[in-house]
Amino acid sequence: MFRSHLVACLALASFVSTAPADEGMWLLNRPPVEALKGKYAFEPSAAWLDHMQKSCVRFETGGSGSIVSANGLVMTNHHVGSDMIEKLSTPERNLMETGFHARTRAEELPCPDLELRLLWSIEDVTERVNSAVGEGMAAADALAARRKMMSAIEAEAQEKTGLYAEVVTLYQGGRYHLYSSKRYTDVRLVFAPEMQIAFFGGDTDNFEYPRFDLDCCFFRIYENGQPLKATHHLKWSANGAADGELTFVFGHPGSTDRLYTVDHLKFMRDAELPYTLRRLWRNEIKMTSFAARSDEHARIASGDVFGIANSRKAQTGVLAGLLDPVIMDRKRADEQALRAAVQANSDQRTAWGDAWHEITEAQETLREFYVRYAALEFRGGALRGDLPRIARTLVRLAAEKAKPSADRLREYRDSELPSVELELFSPAPIYEALEIERLASGLSLMAELLGGDDPAVQAALGGLSPHNRAEQLVKATTLEDVEVRRRVAGGGQPTIDNARDPLLVLIRNLDAEARALRQRYEDEVESVERGAYARIAAAMFAIHGESIYPDATFTLRLAFGPIKGYAEHGAAVAPFTTFAGLYERSELRHAAYPFNLPQRWIDRKDRLELGTPFNFVCTADIIGGNSGSPVVNKAGEVVGLIFDGNVQSLVWDVAYTDAQGRAVAVDSRGMIEALGAVYEADELVNELTAK
Amino acid sequence: MFRSHLVACLALASFVSTAPADEGMWLLNRPPVEALKGKYAFEPSAAWLDHMQKSCVRFETGGSGSIVSANGLVMTNHHVGSDMIEKLSTPERNLMETGFHARTRAEELPCPDLELRLLWSIEDVTERVNSAVGEGMAAADALAARRKMMSAIEAEAQEKTGLYAEVVTLYQGGRYHLYSSKRYTDVRLVFAPEMQIAFFGGDTDNFEYPRFDLDCCFFRIYENGQPLKATHHLKWSANGAADGELTFVFGHPGSTDRLYTVDHLKFMRDAELPYTLRRLWRNEIKMTSFAARSDEHARIASGDVFGIANSRKAQTGVLAGLLDPVIMDRKRADEQALRAAVQANSDQRTAWGDAWHEITEAQETLREFYVRYAALEFRGGALRGDLPRIARTLVRLAAEKAKPSADRLREYRDSELPSVELELFSPAPIYEALEIERLASGLSLMAELLGGDDPAVQAALGGLSPHNRAEQLVKATTLEDVEVRRRVAGGGQPTIDNARDPLLVLIRNLDAEARALRQRYEDEVESVERGAYARIAAAMFAIHGESIYPDATFTLRLAFGPIKGYAEHGAAVAPFTTFAGLYERSELRHAAYPFNLPQRWIDRKDRLELGTPFNFVCTADIIGGNSGSPVVNKAGEVVGLIFDGNVQSLVWDVAYTDAQGRAVAVDSRGMIEALGAVYEADELVNELTAK
Repeated sequence: MFRSHLVACLALASFVSTAPADEGMWLLNRPPVEALKGKYAFEPSAAWLDHMQKSCVRFETGGSGSIVSANGLVMTNHHVGSDMIEKLSTPERNLMETGFHARTRAEELPCPDLELRLLWSIEDVTERVNSAVGEGMAAADALAARRKMMSAIEAEAQEKTGLYAEVVTLYQGGRYHLYSSKRYTDVRLVFAPEMQIAFFGGDTDNFEYPRFDLDCCFFRIYENGQPLKATHHLKWSANGAADGELTFVFGHPGSTDRLYTVDHLKFMRDAELPYTLRRLWRNEIKMTSFAARSDEHARIASGDVFGIANSRKAQTGVLAGLLDPVIMDRKRADEQALRAAVQANSDQRTAWGDAWHEITEAQETLREFYVRYAALEFRGGALRGDLPRIARTLVRLAAEKAKPSADRLREYRDSELPSVELELFSPAPIYEALEIERLASGLSLMAELLGGDDPAVQAALGGLSPHNRAEQLVKATTLEDVEVRRRVAGGGQPTIDNARDPLLVLIRNLDAEARALRQRYEDEVESVERGAYARIAAAMFAIHGESIYPDATFTLRLAFGPIKGYAEHGAAVAPFTTFAGLYERSELRHAAYPFNLPQRWIDRKDRLELGTPFNFVCTADIIGGNSGSPVVNKAGEVVGLIFDGNVQSLVWDVAYTDAQGRAVAVDSRGMIEALGAVYEADELVNELTAK
Repeated sequence: MFRSHLVACLALASFVSTAPADEGMWLLNRPPVEALKGKYAFEPSAAWLDHMQKSCVRFETGGSGSIVSANGLVMTNHHVGSDMIEKLSTPERNLMETGFHARTRAEELPCPDLELRLLWSIEDVTERVNSAVGEGMAAADALAARRKMMSAIEAEAQEKTGLYAEVVTLYQGGRYHLYSSKRYTDVRLVFAPEMQIAFFGGDTDNFEYPRFDLDCCFFRIYENGQPLKATHHLKWSANGAADGELTFVFGHPGSTDRLYTVDHLKFMRDAELPYTLRRLWRNEIKMTSFAARSDEHARIASGDVFGIANSRKAQTGVLAGLLDPVIMDRKRADEQALRAAVQANSDQRTAWGDAWHEITEAQETLREFYVRYAALEFRGGALRGDLPRIARTLVRLAAEKAKPSADRLREYRDSELPSVELELFSPAPIYEALEIERLASGLSLMAELLGGDDPAVQAALGGLSPHNRAEQLVKATTLEDVEVRRRVAGGGQPTIDNARDPLLVLIRNLDAEARALRQRYEDEVESVERGAYARIAAAMFAIHGESIYPDATFTLRLAFGPIKGYAEHGAAVAPFTTFAGLYERSELRHAAYPFNLPQRWIDRKDRLELGTPFNFVCTADIIGGNSGSPVVNKAGEVVGLIFDGNVQSLVWDVAYTDAQGRAVAVDSRGMIEALGAVYEADELVNELTAK
């Protein structure tokens, strides 16, 4: 399923050539008017776009959602909400297993650390950002100067509007837009089905089609203790969408790599993805084994297991794409054509001609230290788990807060601190057994990657085996206590310097090298890429005009395309599935996990109109992070809810094609039918379908 | 579980220091007389040892067994026999799921390609082998000269006795013994329980204790179409063994690495095991996902899934040991003591002093090409699957058969050809879907390891994506047809040279580099190690005397130790489990897979004496390959059947300790009780317990 894994992917936005078919993740302030008018005779009005924009929310945990009632009801996927659903569970009340339904407002469950953002306005600040760069500045200095200016613009905007402000880098430096958003942190769980029906078919059917998943859940935004009076919200379609009908998807695709240079793609293929998959395979085996050991282990590890397996399948698909000569040949041809056009014009050649080569060199540099950088610096690298993450945040927060906001690591600038603290001081449960398992596996992975005699590995192991060290650290630390975290955070750098907590000490000791690696990445790779891709962008704008969209950046985008089946193994795959198909598939697989059904779906089968559309596919261009995006019709009414792409869509990370690739959604009619007939959630149905 | 993975591990035998406790995998012609007399007041007679030797068999698929009736009945583990049980299954008759029981001789099922060997005699030929090495010969030449002499000795012996003859390298060159064995290839399946009870608890409980597994099955050896009239066979103990009773294990431990030098162990830790685990994780995820897709997929992939998961768990345990400073410090101290003793004597210093350094250098050389060598040359490397294995055998067989036996790759010398052909011309089923999946995954792994632009990768992919290439090759080849294989093998080199079969062509094209890598390994690593370890062996013999045992080499060994519980997490783990415990564990885990029971175990629970011992642990020193080894008492009577070691025993690959490490066995009483009460296999019980 499409859950964004933001932190692990240091994706660089790039560009796509003028889009054929229904390709594109379009900016809302640069909508695909031509394509929609030409192919579908539909012209989105400014009001229509503004309404859609202000009805959509972003889940900071990595997903999309939409406001679907005047009272702040929010629709997203179960697998986007599952992080919260798990945190709200206990051994006695496993909401993943039982589902949840608040029949009254009072029963709605406040989430411990969920933040939603709603994009309120967009402003192009490209010129102002670029004005910070002096003539002949080195790449690293230019990057720093732009960042400083971006922080200043953000601080100024935030001061003026009170909204969360972020300058977003688009077209990898081709454009900079100021996004101002509302933040909501009082969010409560309203309804979630059992994971068994939300994720029916499990990993086996994940990224496959046909599907039969009720992958939805509902939250409610509160403001000042009251349900949000939404200025905009989506209405429910009375009849859903028909085969062939044009649909629109508004959501937050996390990252794509569509116009990486060929050599950059080869770096992904030969270095980045092999590392990532190696880590994911290990983690999946370890977490699956851990979860199998007892019911309680299964409960506390289920989110981790899902997230890892989901990423693994997605990344496997991307790698398969990069190993497909058809795709690489097309990439090579596109690049050669663009470079040839640039070479043919002497001004362009002088201005942009070297950009591709610079990126090639940057990748070669990165190969020298990529694995070490990833292991020591990436979240989810070697020191995996909640406690190492908390320790890292505390260590860095102390150092960064002592600097002016514009000079800090970007994730610690003033505008981000509320989000950092929401996560840092979250009362969400931390499980000792799970932490030990994750840390032990991470420490072993670190040794496998860097070698047992490596100084960082030796420091991390502290003279113990990975498992014994993990046990020692997890048992000795007191960071599972939120009050301890508050005290440490309050004490600033002296508290960190004098810390005796062994986990804090370890993270502090490893931090210098981790920071140095990141600095090297920024100075020698990112800054070079930023400068070079900006020139490639300029070349593309010059040659293709402005009808191109930027790579995904986990910011709001519009995609579109009709509901449409496809052919596979010589047979037609119909665009819609039904409840009848769900029961058939369960029976075919002997109702064995993951094809078993929740008891109430068995008991209430007779109440369901079995022919109701349950899931469908359309050609809209989506990617991880789009999970929970509403699918709407021309009237902007909800006809579905994106929750996945099929296996043929995984390659969309680097190249869109609608030959077979499809976005997968829950049908709006299926949701209403299930909520009514199976869950007797009449008040929820009424709220959704209110005129 | 302990199944040997012979081909993947190019293990080098080494040595262990004089053994404390119950350590040791002893040669039958150098039994641990001192230890047994001193600690247990037991002196094994020559006749007792001869009887045991001639009652034991080796499964060439990688396991141990014993003859347990006068009519050639052979006992081993279900997981050793499962390879055959799967091959004898069809979609309509899934013997893994249903079990199998031949109530008459006529119902016994002939195995398609099973070979058993029975060791008949041992002769020390060390002097003759070493006489081939001239003064001042280079390491690579010395290796070749010894090999040539070994082949000559084997050919001569085989000619004289008609027995299969093999010169076994022990103490890594310290000794060479000529082993002469009887070979049996008409072997028939007599009885197998359902996999669900043989492997109750699945991967979750694998390598754990307490256990509740009926991990046994029975075959029968035929000779000239009649059941073997066994000259020796084991009798069944009337009462089993008691807590604390001394037991003996006779079996074929596959490989250990106990006295690798510290730097050699570091190579394992930092290069070999990380590569191996990376491959295993990938394969496990891929095969588990494949098996989940349908009942038929589950059936055809179950053996692969088990084998991979089993290896992964075992190798994870070895790596954990190598990352444990306690173990590495002990290794370092042992090595330093031995080196200091050698340094203290000028003759010894001159003769042996450089050996450790030579091994260090050999490992450094190997690091330069290890991954490439493993990917291209190891069975189970990049081109995984039955069809690539068959193609490789055909390509090499043609080239090797054209040479004199003594000049061939060792696995193709004359004495090995019957075994090579048994496997090559096996009518065992080959499944297209499974082959495609394995080959696609292998091709992707190859690209991940070597890079997408690597010439070997490009050749392997042939301009297609891994999946498309795998599909193309598997669908186009005709090697699934045994007659085709016979024709190709019969045609020799010209047929290979003119082959159009795309899989043969691919393997042929990759073979030159694979052979070159192997040659480099032999010339620059193996030969150096062989020479250096021989000198280290000489040093150990000089300092410790002859009371040391060689590392495991998949040849018959004797281990011993009492039945004995241990302490874990502060609690006592009892040595025996019972049927009552089986039912309790199933209930605790809601009888959900892998803790579900076969229907007849549910139906016939009342017939079982629930207090009967089911599994037990003892301190005998075993390792992968010992699976299926009989456990006997001082009278040589069967009291159990080795099927596993606990998780604390996994480190025995590099260092034995009986603090917690234990061998795990099925109790002889549990087998008889289950065979009678659950399976109504009275004739089998009678045959086993006949006086």
